[in-house]
Amino acid sequence: MALEDITLDCVHDTAQSDVDLPTDAVLQTAASMLNAAGDASRLRLLLRLAQGRRCVSELAEAEGEKLATVSARLKLLHSARLVSRQREAKHVYYELADDHISCLVRDLLNHAAEDTPQR
Amino acid sequence: MALEDITLDCVHDTAQSDVDLPTDAVLQTAASMLNAAGDASRLRLLLRLAQGRRCVSELAEAEGEKLATVSARLKLLHSARLVSRQREAKHVYYELADDHISCLVRDLLNHAAEDTPQR
Repeated sequence: MALEDITLDCVHDTAQSDVDLPTDAVLQTAASMLNAAGDASRLRLLLRLAQGRRCVSELAEAEGEKLATVSARLKLLHSARLVSRQREAKHVYYELADDHISCLVRDLLNHAAEDTPQR
Repeated sequence: MALEDITLDCVHDTAQSDVDLPTDAVLQTAASMLNAAGDASRLRLLLRLAQGRRCVSELAEAEGEKLATVSARLKLLHSARLVSRQREAKHVYYELADDHISCLVRDLLNHAAEDTPQR
């Protein structure tokens, strides 16, 4: 950065308060989505679903967890609208809600991996 | 979806457990990032920073909050590596850590806005 680009005095941009912010309701929804995803085991489920739709028993087997445990995690992700589900005969299938979520998960993990020590 | 595409029996994909998952350390880092961002007031700061770097006093004024309050929120976002900061003379400037974070914030808010009731 060139020295002339540095503003030593704090020039307040009066337009800053006019930034086009979403409504409080949207911010609260977004925060709830982050909290629902903000757990390593639920995040791992989102990563598995980023590969395509899966049924609950398939996910439970892959995770080495009880069906009820995985089912509860998926319900939480579903309440936060991070995943969608379809019932077909006896099976309930889950998938990521849409491309926003797959992009979000990818960007998050890429960022987290950048300088997390690999053990 | 054509009927022939529907698998009524649950065919377990044995490769599913081999999905290329990140390490536990990366998953924990990612979960911490989500928790740091998972609050409406901290999310609003990230949105303001998505417009470009800002100094703490500028953000406090835009938020109508005390400097110490905004400073504490920014510290939390910085600890989770969601924002970076530079000190210049008496001012501390914050900006989003990188493009992963700006994409993440954009995707999240677009998704949250999709069917949140607008009041």
